[in-house]
Amino acid sequence: MKLDVVLRAEDVSPENLKGKTAVAIDAFRATTTVITALEKGCRAVIPVLSVEEAEKKREELSALGDEVLIAGERKGLKIPGFDLGNSPREFKEVFLKNKIIILTTSNGTRAIHGSEGAERILIGAFINCRAVAEVLASKGEDVVFVCAGRLGEFSLEDFLAAGAVTHYLKKRAERSLEISDLLIAAEKLFQCTKEDLPGFLGTGKHGKYLREIGFPQDIDHCCALNTSDIVPEYINGVVKI
Amino acid sequence: MKLDVVLRAEDVSPENLKGKTAVAIDAFRATTTVITALEKGCRAVIPVLSVEEAEKKREELSALGDEVLIAGERKGLKIPGFDLGNSPREFKEVFLKNKIIILTTSNGTRAIHGSEGAERILIGAFINCRAVAEVLASKGEDVVFVCAGRLGEFSLEDFLAAGAVTHYLKKRAERSLEISDLLIAAEKLFQCTKEDLPGFLGTGKHGKYLREIGFPQDIDHCCALNTSDIVPEYINGVVKI
Repeated sequence: MKLDVVLRAEDVSPENLKGKTAVAIDAFRATTTVITALEKGCRAVIPVLSVEEAEKKREELSALGDEVLIAGERKGLKIPGFDLGNSPREFKEVFLKNKIIILTTSNGTRAIHGSEGAERILIGAFINCRAVAEVLASKGEDVVFVCAGRLGEFSLEDFLAAGAVTHYLKKRAERSLEISDLLIAAEKLFQCTKEDLPGFLGTGKHGKYLREIGFPQDIDHCCALNTSDIVPEYINGVVKI
Repeated sequence: MKLDVVLRAEDVSPENLKGKTAVAIDAFRATTTVITALEKGCRAVIPVLSVEEAEKKREELSALGDEVLIAGERKGLKIPGFDLGNSPREFKEVFLKNKIIILTTSNGTRAIHGSEGAERILIGAFINCRAVAEVLASKGEDVVFVCAGRLGEFSLEDFLAAGAVTHYLKKRAERSLEISDLLIAAEKLFQCTKEDLPGFLGTGKHGKYLREIGFPQDIDHCCALNTSDIVPEYINGVVKI
């Protein structure tokens, strides 16, 4: 079972993904938000790339009688006119049961779309990293972690979350794992920092930015290990449990 | 003082390097070999990209009366007909005083050439990482670590050596450092693994390969921290102290 990681959504190519399981990761915050929303009972999350697409999709689904919320951020802040931003804590506070969420974010939705071409696309974050490892182990397919990155750059938290899943996979040790050097680095780094992820990730660019724009508690929420056992999957444009 | 890292020689661009100090790193083994050779008293190392270039340069310099050795590897092994391979331990055992070495390797010489365009190009490895940090601190210019990578892929040891230099720079703490997220990861990883670098790097692809082809002791030599105080510089095609 081969495991590799791609550092930015931009770097992924369909040939990289063919026949493999992709794990899309945007730990701060899109994939954490998706998992949190599905935990709260929403029916599905539809990741889209643009604000216009989100609004159009809402009209379409509302016309079909679905209960729809649009959510998302630009520069970390809620998009004007949207129901929700991209803070997972917001999603904990609203009634989501059976609703559909249409989500557009700067990086995470691109990681999910960029994973198209893989055999299977799972949604990963720190909050479900052990559960993702369980699913990967049960499938036994080769894996590519698709880190969203941040505005085209490396993202410390996504890299570390890929390391976290790898860490739990290694602990199971049921299969022989062929781990790429980048992922060896990520896994070791997770081992060294797992006792204080918010402290370590708070030194990174995105951690600093989230504090600056008023979301310091999101860092704690996003860094809480294994608070969720669900592993959402993206199939035909829709993320569901 | 901004610090960043490029993971493969292929990824560097002149715009990245303008006005900055580049530190070319191929810890396993080319830059370690260059430092070792200069420690042993050789006059200069000339990194070239091809076997043909090495042979031509030797003829040219020999005709001028210089004492010249040609050295290098392909697939880790000494090039047929060459005086030396790319094992730093070989260079410790031969008489090098005042000789010129022409070196061609699979990755390291490309990292050095790829750094052209920088204000200054230093040669770094684990064996001189503290000394490199001292020079960087004294200059105060922005820094890009140019990791050679390995056959176009990420190299665990080069990444970690960039983290090692950053670690010693941070310890000096004389200047405010703006460290990129990738380099934050590398520095932390170095902190966590520095007590057993050969053990950790032996789990990487290149470490395994060096053992396979009969150079296990090179790993120890290349991982020995701060055994050298020299910081070679590449100027006009030539590496010298």
